[in-house]
Amino acid sequence: MRAARLYWRSRRGSSIVHHSTVTPPAAGQPARALNELTATEIVAAVAAGRTTCEAVARACLERVAEREPQVQAWAHLDPDHVLAQARALDRGARRGPLHGVPFGVKDIIDTADLPTEYGTAIHKGHRPAKDAACVALSRKAGAVLMGKTVTTEFANVTPGKTRNPLDPARTPGGSSSGSGAAVADWMVPLALGTQTTGSTTRPASFCGVFGYRPTWGDLRMAGVMEASGSLDTLGILARSIEDIALYRDVLLGVEPAPLPEDLPAPRIGFCRPYFWERLEPATQRLLEGAARRLAHAGARVREVPLPGGFEGLEAAHRWISGFEMARNLAWELENHREAISEKFRSGRLKDGLACTYEHYREMRDFVEHCRRRLAPVMSGHDVLLAPAAQGEAPVGWDPVPHPWVYMVWTAMHVPSVTLPAYTGPNGLPIGAQLIASRCEDSKLLAAARWAYRVLRD
Amino acid sequence: MRAARLYWRSRRGSSIVHHSTVTPPAAGQPARALNELTATEIVAAVAAGRTTCEAVARACLERVAEREPQVQAWAHLDPDHVLAQARALDRGARRGPLHGVPFGVKDIIDTADLPTEYGTAIHKGHRPAKDAACVALSRKAGAVLMGKTVTTEFANVTPGKTRNPLDPARTPGGSSSGSGAAVADWMVPLALGTQTTGSTTRPASFCGVFGYRPTWGDLRMAGVMEASGSLDTLGILARSIEDIALYRDVLLGVEPAPLPEDLPAPRIGFCRPYFWERLEPATQRLLEGAARRLAHAGARVREVPLPGGFEGLEAAHRWISGFEMARNLAWELENHREAISEKFRSGRLKDGLACTYEHYREMRDFVEHCRRRLAPVMSGHDVLLAPAAQGEAPVGWDPVPHPWVYMVWTAMHVPSVTLPAYTGPNGLPIGAQLIASRCEDSKLLAAARWAYRVLRD
Repeated sequence: MRAARLYWRSRRGSSIVHHSTVTPPAAGQPARALNELTATEIVAAVAAGRTTCEAVARACLERVAEREPQVQAWAHLDPDHVLAQARALDRGARRGPLHGVPFGVKDIIDTADLPTEYGTAIHKGHRPAKDAACVALSRKAGAVLMGKTVTTEFANVTPGKTRNPLDPARTPGGSSSGSGAAVADWMVPLALGTQTTGSTTRPASFCGVFGYRPTWGDLRMAGVMEASGSLDTLGILARSIEDIALYRDVLLGVEPAPLPEDLPAPRIGFCRPYFWERLEPATQRLLEGAARRLAHAGARVREVPLPGGFEGLEAAHRWISGFEMARNLAWELENHREAISEKFRSGRLKDGLACTYEHYREMRDFVEHCRRRLAPVMSGHDVLLAPAAQGEAPVGWDPVPHPWVYMVWTAMHVPSVTLPAYTGPNGLPIGAQLIASRCEDSKLLAAARWAYRVLRD
Repeated sequence: MRAARLYWRSRRGSSIVHHSTVTPPAAGQPARALNELTATEIVAAVAAGRTTCEAVARACLERVAEREPQVQAWAHLDPDHVLAQARALDRGARRGPLHGVPFGVKDIIDTADLPTEYGTAIHKGHRPAKDAACVALSRKAGAVLMGKTVTTEFANVTPGKTRNPLDPARTPGGSSSGSGAAVADWMVPLALGTQTTGSTTRPASFCGVFGYRPTWGDLRMAGVMEASGSLDTLGILARSIEDIALYRDVLLGVEPAPLPEDLPAPRIGFCRPYFWERLEPATQRLLEGAARRLAHAGARVREVPLPGGFEGLEAAHRWISGFEMARNLAWELENHREAISEKFRSGRLKDGLACTYEHYREMRDFVEHCRRRLAPVMSGHDVLLAPAAQGEAPVGWDPVPHPWVYMVWTAMHVPSVTLPAYTGPNGLPIGAQLIASRCEDSKLLAAARWAYRVLRD
């Protein structure tokens, strides 16, 4: 068993012909379709005059036109509006560090110029008055809003229409389903998601792209639907670590700084969490192989057990998120109860409504206690290596399988990156997750770049 | 010096005649105008058939009609809509624990049936598609949305039109200016505010009502403008502790439970924070007198110094809130920069935009460190007694004077209640603040009721 190359590179068919390429190509490189460039590459190509914002937008729109009937990643997309934004950028001066980069936005995040429907017919056609903070910061940086990506209903358990671009019989993973699929299928280089349980990590692993969940509290949530405020974060789906680092700085509202190049090999804690035996054997073997490869390449790799009792975080996460979601959706429950899917209503919402404040508080205290216990575990390591999924994307439409893979890390408020490092027994991607201490996102991204360079070879 | 009675009781003129009273009055009590009842009293009177939701709403509307030209507490109020809600309640079965109680909502909180303008012309006429969670939970409990109360611009430094109902030459305090003024001036028994620095505590003290800031994170913020998410909470302005306890349960989405009656006298830590010398001498004397009176009534009162270094929380609060506000308002800064007041733009927003992530993170770490240091200080006490204001409401329109009074407690994420306990040298109210440990809101409210019974006599 060995690490596969970036999943989409190994699967990419030569049958897809794109009209738009970077012209002239960088010396010694084959011409690449513009929609296949990373954000960082688009910015460089536009700045160097090798392409235009409009040409990039057209290439992405062509890819959408070709593939959307199968993938169905988009809730709202207006090609004319996309081209108008791109042309306006071409007419003006450089606007910022994402000048000309098309991006997708999960449809629970407000946009002033496109509907925001939260994956439910209840809010059909709803048009917010302003952009969410993360959208406004993206546009300020010069990014081009491509469209709204499909979310599961209220970013919860009931799927949207999106299929896994690598196998239409399988889920793309949720709740940021469209964001994962659109980035994986070369429709946009960047997309915004969110995460309350595994809503960025899961589609990243199932679709074979990078997924980043920031330290809880770092990136502003104004204009993003609150599912469970004490757990929610934004998420970034992308096709390179450099793109994630760049986009993170944009969303932080700070001057972008490139990741340092001269760092020593990271100290990695290899974590087989208490749910290790629930993983598919292939996933176990791939992660064990990754640990060996990373050690062989110079990382200091040590086994790190989670503290005892952490399995209690599954129940704690369920109660806390259920309690908060049931209150946040009070308006819908009062006014459109029957239009909420039975699965969501009779599951998490029903449990949440029945949860007392005392129990909710007890669960929050327990989570806080676990956060304190995790800190010393992590202190001897730059990052932890852990599973990002139980296995390949399952056949069928359950968008949120195996929540237990994600709950621990999300509840801990720590940042994580999913690396599209492996191919499973059915030829589909399986991610590996790297995790750092709170606020150590820069260190995490630098270690992730180092690790990915080792694993992709 | 001695504790005054509830401020509005001592100032209430007999010249104001109300047509609507509780009919028949409770045995042995004089008839009281319906708009002067507390929420708890309204619920009881309606349930007993002694009045109707419509009669209560009419009494509140009459008070508004009489006083609004001077007070200007309301950003949006539609009398017909208020009466329609009340009549619908009268026609149906008991809806919940606030059946028939009119409430005001700060105009940074979304309402589906009234505009939400955030105190700025930028969002003139904006109509959200749904109620904020706190509004939906209020309506579910049977409360009648009276209208939207005036907020300062984006709940920040630039005043709205509201005057202090007790002296029109003075500020009502902000940013929940209209909520404080409307409750104090007998227009509604309850109003929702928010707090990022002192935006509930300050108007409560300046207008002479009870103000409650819950434990950070307890009450859901879906549909409430995010100013600075790591500091923001809802706030409740009311005319009794019982009303606050009832409304808190409604907003938590749990079955209301009355405050326990048989508690022992609380253990009170009397806190003269590092800024004690900046308080008006009258405020110092009033608080020292309160500590003596509470001890005399049976409370165990001990002096509690804050840990050293807590004065650093002022700068930390400023940087953290500035950093977050500047990102949350990215859309307005990009699209309507000139329509943002110069005072806000060139102050907090400018500083926030210039703040690096590293500095922001350092400040957050410092605040977290202080939270850990505060816990043992509070552990020997049920509540702390501390100032709620520098003094009486100042003459003029600065809505947010003396932020340093509030920053420490808000940054600590602890719950607080402001008691309208005192009258200052100009005959205007000065509040006292009680503070409890995180999540000890019930204990706080029980202690506040005990303390207020002592101090009002």
